Amino acid sequence: MAALWNVMRGLCSGHLSLYGIKSLQYKPTGILCQLLCKSSYQRRLFTNKNMMVELDSNTGVAVIQMKKPPVNSLNLEFLTEFAINMEKLEMDRECRGVVLTSSIPKIFSAGLDINEMYGKTPEHTGEFWRAVQEIWLKLYGSNLVTIAAINVSRICSILLLPVHFTSFEQSIQKIECLPQIICPATSEPGASPAGGCLLAMACDYRIMADNPKYAIGLNETKLGIVAPFWFKDTMINVIGRRATEHSLQLGLMYSTSEALKIGLVDQLVAQDKIMTTALSVMSEWLAIPDHARQITKSMMRKPTLDQLLTNRESDIQNFVNFISKDSIQKSLQLYLEMLRQRKG
Amino acid sequence: MAALWNVMRGLCSGHLSLYGIKSLQYKPTGILCQLLCKSSYQRRLFTNKNMMVELDSNTGVAVIQMKKPPVNSLNLEFLTEFAINMEKLEMDRECRGVVLTSSIPKIFSAGLDINEMYGKTPEHTGEFWRAVQEIWLKLYGSNLVTIAAINVSRICSILLLPVHFTSFEQSIQKIECLPQIICPATSEPGASPAGGCLLAMACDYRIMADNPKYAIGLNETKLGIVAPFWFKDTMINVIGRRATEHSLQLGLMYSTSEALKIGLVDQLVAQDKIMTTALSVMSEWLAIPDHARQITKSMMRKPTLDQLLTNRESDIQNFVNFISKDSIQKSLQLYLEMLRQRKG
Amino acid sequence: MAALWNVMRGLCSGHLSLYGIKSLQYKPTGILCQLLCKSSYQRRLFTNKNMMVELDSNTGVAVIQMKKPPVNSLNLEFLTEFAINMEKLEMDRECRGVVLTSSIPKIFSAGLDINEMYGKTPEHTGEFWRAVQEIWLKLYGSNLVTIAAINVSRICSILLLPVHFTSFEQSIQKIECLPQIICPATSEPGASPAGGCLLAMACDYRIMADNPKYAIGLNETKLGIVAPFWFKDTMINVIGRRATEHSLQLGLMYSTSEALKIGLVDQLVAQDKIMTTALSVMSEWLAIPDHARQITKSMMRKPTLDQLLTNRESDIQNFVNFISKDSIQKSLQLYLEMLRQRKG
Repeated sequence: MAALWNVMRGLCSGHLSLYGIKSLQYKPTGILCQLLCKSSYQRRLFTNKNMMVELDSNTGVAVIQMKKPPVNSLNLEFLTEFAINMEKLEMDRECRGVVLTSSIPKIFSAGLDINEMYGKTPEHTGEFWRAVQEIWLKLYGSNLVTIAAINVSRICSILLLPVHFTSFEQSIQKIECLPQIICPATSEPGASPAGGCLLAMACDYRIMADNPKYAIGLNETKLGIVAPFWFKDTMINVIGRRATEHSLQLGLMYSTSEALKIGLVDQLVAQDKIMTTALSVMSEWLAIPDHARQITKSMMRKPTLDQLLTNRESDIQNFVNFISKDSIQKSLQLYLEMLRQRKG
Repeated sequence: MAALWNVMRGLCSGHLSLYGIKSLQYKPTGILCQLLCKSSYQRRLFTNKNMMVELDSNTGVAVIQMKKPPVNSLNLEFLTEFAINMEKLEMDRECRGVVLTSSIPKIFSAGLDINEMYGKTPEHTGEFWRAVQEIWLKLYGSNLVTIAAINVSRICSILLLPVHFTSFEQSIQKIECLPQIICPATSEPGASPAGGCLLAMACDYRIMADNPKYAIGLNETKLGIVAPFWFKDTMINVIGRRATEHSLQLGLMYSTSEALKIGLVDQLVAQDKIMTTALSVMSEWLAIPDHARQITKSMMRKPTLDQLLTNRESDIQNFVNFISKDSIQKSLQLYLEMLRQRKG
Repeated sequence: MAALWNVMRGLCSGHLSLYGIKSLQYKPTGILCQLLCKSSYQRRLFTNKNMMVELDSNTGVAVIQMKKPPVNSLNLEFLTEFAINMEKLEMDRECRGVVLTSSIPKIFSAGLDINEMYGKTPEHTGEFWRAVQEIWLKLYGSNLVTIAAINVSRICSILLLPVHFTSFEQSIQKIECLPQIICPATSEPGASPAGGCLLAMACDYRIMADNPKYAIGLNETKLGIVAPFWFKDTMINVIGRRATEHSLQLGLMYSTSEALKIGLVDQLVAQDKIMTTALSVMSEWLAIPDHARQITKSMMRKPTLDQLLTNRESDIQNFVNFISKDSIQKSLQLYLEMLRQRKG
């Protein structure tokens, strides 16, 4: 029976443009290949500098493991690799779903890399921000089933948050305050702040390691900065308007049980059960015919995606103008120096 | 005191067009008639082929019982009768509220009738889809208090779901899969899929028989099809955006307790208490002056109604184009043949 | 550490116009003054006829106590004072947050004052309604952290609800019904109806006295009237669309536990702990840098505020036209006479 499902899924073709929704590109799942090699277990691996992608052609499931020590910070190189990998999988006839996780023990992602914002040309800064937008567009608008397996943990992520200082003085304020804000218990526990939380929220389903010390959230205001409108829109679509207003105003980091309660994650499991759970949930999602699920997903998410697509250039320009200010650059310098001293 | 309420409610008249909301038509509740006949218990009955409508002029409450064996499938004739009955009640000065239920034991409604989509002219198919739109517009936009008493149960509803195949092969896939999807325990338990769930969601309040075997949901994607945008909008207005995205992508059928938890139904009661509960809830709603409740309801629902009114013709055209495809017609043929064999 | 926070907060300056959101006016917190007088405990008090405002320059927190016996009804004078006080605090460099509460034992606010609508010129009625809009605009759009400490209680608030009768007959109906609706247990318990509930919903956070007899809600339809669109929008932003539709159609007054469950209030505490809790919650909100919190708040609330700003004059005109009708004026007269007799 399951075999017939697979056979039929592969054979079906054509576009479904029912109800005025522009049809998503149909992606056959390579049935001929599948039939030929069914008995042999087939895996394909592409390893980049910052991530490892493993596609099981038998199940159609790819696992993306972020592996950029120490904390999977999102710099331009990482984001570019990520986008290319997503595009590859999106075009791959054998891929139907992606599990996003981390291969670094106890870290999902610490968010955007501050080094991309200091001492760079406006062109570079703009390119960096475009890459942040791009990975969100790719994930939030993906035709694949996307599941975040959030295996966060202990390492503190103060280094890499997107810090947009407005003044020299504020930067000092933040240097002093960050350790307390992000790591209340002296570099324990680690968190999955802003950037990492955004990646997770862009997926279809979120599974998180059940540990009372872990946390997830968009904590921008705690650092004196503001989540962009599309971070906000994504969060509203996941946890609703009131919870988002509360969360964003206070830059709240939620414990795992709070995150589950407000719907920021869908499921908590023991750390060592995260991948098996993710794959099991994936198989439920893959039981749904792809094209119907894809059109439904697009119907839900297109208005939010269009908002950024329409305002993409002005969003970049705003970011670049802000980051290029002398006061901000000076703040970033101080901040990075402080971090180097701490490290030393 | 309660009598005075009724008296005064009947006497009041005029339009309330406060706050820029176009006033709904005022419908006096026939107080003179009511005063004359108060002591005598007055019921009016109109029975059609597919439904029975009983209006109690004393309470102002009509009960619509769907009675189209075997499973209250929504075909053109049924939908047309339903719309005419709703219009009658809407215009009836003695009617203030409607309870929608089924007289078929253990069935609420199995959804749209596939026979209306196979071997019919485009004109017929368009007329059918317009009738589906019409009953939703009538229910969702009704000035009456509308309560769904969902007495679903055991019979399997594979026969009548809106199946929009995209290809010959998919149809086979579906024929194989349907029994497992819809009736996991071999024609037990029955469900209230797509069409029936839509009717319920269009009401003001939903009461469901409390039985762990029952289920309710919009399961389109499970069949390879997509819920139209106004199904989606209605669901978002009931259970919110995240639950809708999850629900529609997976075509989830919710158990009664899950349905209660996410707000898809408002109340669970024992099967034999459904009608008394519905009438008791109705009396609470009827304690509210009609015109104020109607304007408030319109203020909440008008934007969603307007979306379909504005896009009605293109929605029909999309449906007709889709259904008229050779591949779809062939699929439907195969599917119906399979059902006949199964029956035989 | 905390001292450094304060120092730095005061020094920081400039506008943050990240992400295309128009920057809110920056309000430095008077650090020089603060540094000079830090050791001495500094309070400033401005008492008006209807409210008392106490600003603690040390913490930056102002407490507004409504003190208009018997039930803090919202008449033009009260609303004007309130708006002036809010504007003063908004401009005050030492104020960062406001706690809104009542100094009248067991009353928060009984809502709009019906006397402002009877026997007044259209000009006066329009001015009154503009004042209602204004206080909502000021509260909902405030740059300050706003916390409602809802210390409601026993006194019945039938006198002051915004009653928009559509006819002579309806007014009688309401006179008879009000006591039962608003004060089910014979003038026990008091409630925080429409106007008071709106003030609370416009704040950032709501703390309510935990007493099973207390209630909160927008009960307009129970009186035959309709909540204006911006009451509705505010409620949707707090409790979501389905709960708002249910709530507004039935004019539901929620018990404290129900209000907590649906999110209409954020926290319940013992009556005597309300102010200490409010101040403690406030300190958490004040740990967030003002400008980031303000821009975030504006990003969330601006679309809702703009809706009223765009339609302000027509909203006033609708209200005036409605209230000026002979039938409404006659109803109001009857109602007020009834109340005077009851009082006597």
